[in-house]
Amino acid sequence: MSTSRFTGPPPQVVTAGVSLFADSVAAQGAEVSEVDWRPPMPGAAADLARVMADPRRRDANAEALARIVGTEAHLVDVLPAGPTLGLADRDFLHAGPPIEWSRASGPLRGALLGAATLEGVVEAPEQAEQLFASGAGYTLDPCHHHSAVGPMAGVVSASMWVFVVEDPATGRRTYCTLNEGLGKVLRYGAYSEEVLTRLRWMSRVLGPLLQTAVRRHGPVDLKAILAQMLQMGDEAHNRNRAGTLMLLRELLPELIDSGAPSAEVSGAVQFIAGNDHFFLNLAMPACKLTLDAARDIPGCTVVVAMARNGTDFGIQVSGTGDEWFTGPAQLADGLFLGNFGPEDANPDIGDSAITETAGLGGFSMAAAPAIVRFVGGEVADALAASRRMYEITVGEHPMYSIPVLDFRGCPTGIDVTKVVRTEILPQINTGMAGRLAGVGQVGAGLVTPPAEIFPKALAGLAQRVELD
Amino acid sequence: MSTSRFTGPPPQVVTAGVSLFADSVAAQGAEVSEVDWRPPMPGAAADLARVMADPRRRDANAEALARIVGTEAHLVDVLPAGPTLGLADRDFLHAGPPIEWSRASGPLRGALLGAATLEGVVEAPEQAEQLFASGAGYTLDPCHHHSAVGPMAGVVSASMWVFVVEDPATGRRTYCTLNEGLGKVLRYGAYSEEVLTRLRWMSRVLGPLLQTAVRRHGPVDLKAILAQMLQMGDEAHNRNRAGTLMLLRELLPELIDSGAPSAEVSGAVQFIAGNDHFFLNLAMPACKLTLDAARDIPGCTVVVAMARNGTDFGIQVSGTGDEWFTGPAQLADGLFLGNFGPEDANPDIGDSAITETAGLGGFSMAAAPAIVRFVGGEVADALAASRRMYEITVGEHPMYSIPVLDFRGCPTGIDVTKVVRTEILPQINTGMAGRLAGVGQVGAGLVTPPAEIFPKALAGLAQRVELD
Repeated sequence: MSTSRFTGPPPQVVTAGVSLFADSVAAQGAEVSEVDWRPPMPGAAADLARVMADPRRRDANAEALARIVGTEAHLVDVLPAGPTLGLADRDFLHAGPPIEWSRASGPLRGALLGAATLEGVVEAPEQAEQLFASGAGYTLDPCHHHSAVGPMAGVVSASMWVFVVEDPATGRRTYCTLNEGLGKVLRYGAYSEEVLTRLRWMSRVLGPLLQTAVRRHGPVDLKAILAQMLQMGDEAHNRNRAGTLMLLRELLPELIDSGAPSAEVSGAVQFIAGNDHFFLNLAMPACKLTLDAARDIPGCTVVVAMARNGTDFGIQVSGTGDEWFTGPAQLADGLFLGNFGPEDANPDIGDSAITETAGLGGFSMAAAPAIVRFVGGEVADALAASRRMYEITVGEHPMYSIPVLDFRGCPTGIDVTKVVRTEILPQINTGMAGRLAGVGQVGAGLVTPPAEIFPKALAGLAQRVELD
Repeated sequence: MSTSRFTGPPPQVVTAGVSLFADSVAAQGAEVSEVDWRPPMPGAAADLARVMADPRRRDANAEALARIVGTEAHLVDVLPAGPTLGLADRDFLHAGPPIEWSRASGPLRGALLGAATLEGVVEAPEQAEQLFASGAGYTLDPCHHHSAVGPMAGVVSASMWVFVVEDPATGRRTYCTLNEGLGKVLRYGAYSEEVLTRLRWMSRVLGPLLQTAVRRHGPVDLKAILAQMLQMGDEAHNRNRAGTLMLLRELLPELIDSGAPSAEVSGAVQFIAGNDHFFLNLAMPACKLTLDAARDIPGCTVVVAMARNGTDFGIQVSGTGDEWFTGPAQLADGLFLGNFGPEDANPDIGDSAITETAGLGGFSMAAAPAIVRFVGGEVADALAASRRMYEITVGEHPMYSIPVLDFRGCPTGIDVTKVVRTEILPQINTGMAGRLAGVGQVGAGLVTPPAEIFPKALAGLAQRVELD
């Protein structure tokens, strides 16, 4: 060791593991920082070393964060899904990674049966089972493959109407259906006549009315509403109460002046006002729009989609293109409606974890402590969950601040390497669908992805380090 | 000491003051509870002893709390103030305890000049100064003496419209004008033509439209909305954003179906939707209605009104009837609009501290951490303020729960004896009016009552112990 080593700046020592290391450094009069450390997920060490050493990673992740937080999301139109997404009457979209009928869960099957009936492919839902089981004569594709997202089963069919959310800088668009409310609804796998009647009214009255209002109003800044929601006890996944009211406030004058019959207007207003989750279907495409901006950055380890089809949980990562890394969807732990219990619940389902992927939902539960009355747990858990998510994210969102954490920006941009290193899994809150087709919602709770998908994604990233 | 003293239950020892007392008890193997203690407010010891020893006190305070939390508050009508409150065109109500023109602050004078012009008593506001200074030919009375409350200057005159809030069990009613919005408005002492034009529109269009909507709707449960607000980041004094949106949601279908011209309806909706404080003028009479239920209970030491006229801060206490105990209104500490600074601010003004008297506002700031961006301070201060208020209140409100405090009910029912004993003053958050007539709002901040009014009220209570 040369003399300059002693005349230079004091050594910076960081220790991990037993405190003996730190103690002996401190005993020699040097400053030492102890860090909490645990071994990474099993079997991932080599991939982790390779990906962490990728010189592109730091800038790529910074670029991803900048794009996520910098992309605007404006509601610009409301349109029928058929012509907008290129769906014919036997084309169906669904939530989560790709899946075929034979592996589809009850709620996804239920929603597909209902949608086939809605489109007039069959006269009664049960008649569609044969069609879907045959595996031919229809298409079944993830929403995410069509710039769309769908909550729960997430089924989109031609006659449904969709919100159109646009990035004004690029014209890029994302889509989501209109929210039907809670309980017996198609997205939870219910398909009774009541469900279909509501969907027909939504296509006949609600969609066109919202189209008129949005077009009269001009672009609605969804990120500004999301930012306000976090100040008002919403986390934009399972609490969208303030968001729904703010959307209503925004569109009201245009709805009233739309020229539509006042009974239709007041019916639409009552429907929206009576559904605290209405804004979810705008939060989701807004989140997708900002996350899609971060796709396909070489070397980037940031997750750009988390989605579940009721059977598989899948993630997509910026540095690995459109590849899905999947594992079994988990059962949520939470609160049940009425007489339902854990045995009635389907595993995790829906594209709505796009909110967590963008730093909202479970990641921002500290902004919405009242949510524990809906999803279970204690207020302290909700605060701890948000704090924990900073450990696995690349940064904080400057617009989405959490008041009770001293207005700290929400934890944004899940980093696969951090998840693998810390074994901390993304915290998702979610509705629970009944596991049988036709049942509908049975509860709401907390859930995580299956741990194994992160080492899988890491392996994909490691492979690219070598290929690129 | 008899033997039984040693065979009975172990002694319960509570110590106050230096820890030496506790240590020596603990050294003898006894359990000891140390309590935080400080001397009561100076000069109040004799009155405190007398009032604390009043055998009626405990039950009287329990009764007061039961009445406050048990009284319902329904918005049942919207009416012109003149016939409703028996006001002729030269009768004016104001916020706070009684005051005459000669001692009135700038904002109160400004509001009175504007109101006299609104009522056609004079042609221009300045012409009214002579009338008011003469002390004759008009009446000037506290809102509180007419079952009403008014934010800031709180001036009510005949042509203004008022919300009518009713206790369905007794038919008892309270009243408050409609909220004008922020900035240059009458209640902050502004009286320009813009202010008067808005007030005329409110009387001509907004009041009648709201009357139609409320009558079509039927009673609106204000306590249910207040309970929701605390889950949505409002504390119902300086944050009423969610409350305003929920009121709008409640009345919308009726507004739309009212048969009024759609331009008037959309104008009214835009006015309400554009004013995050609109619900304040419903929170206030709802709080007054529940607190009035606790008036006049012999021996009760609970505060039933805190109110300021811009010069004096006054409280009324259940056990002392309609007597006001007053001291000088304080300057708030907070944030200023634009180029305004502390030298521009008038001392504390308005009946809106009725919200704190009922456990909301400053007492529930933990439910509304985002408020620190409006009134100043840190989030930790907001949480600490709510926690501190439990020290001076008789109980918790079972309907108004604060999520981040594990859904604890808000601290409710200020006990004069506890304030005097602990020297902890009620925490109020408030808008700040410019000290000159005509200026309007200059900021918002935190303030307390002058300490001296609590020993005064205690003396009044002590006197009654002897008289009764």
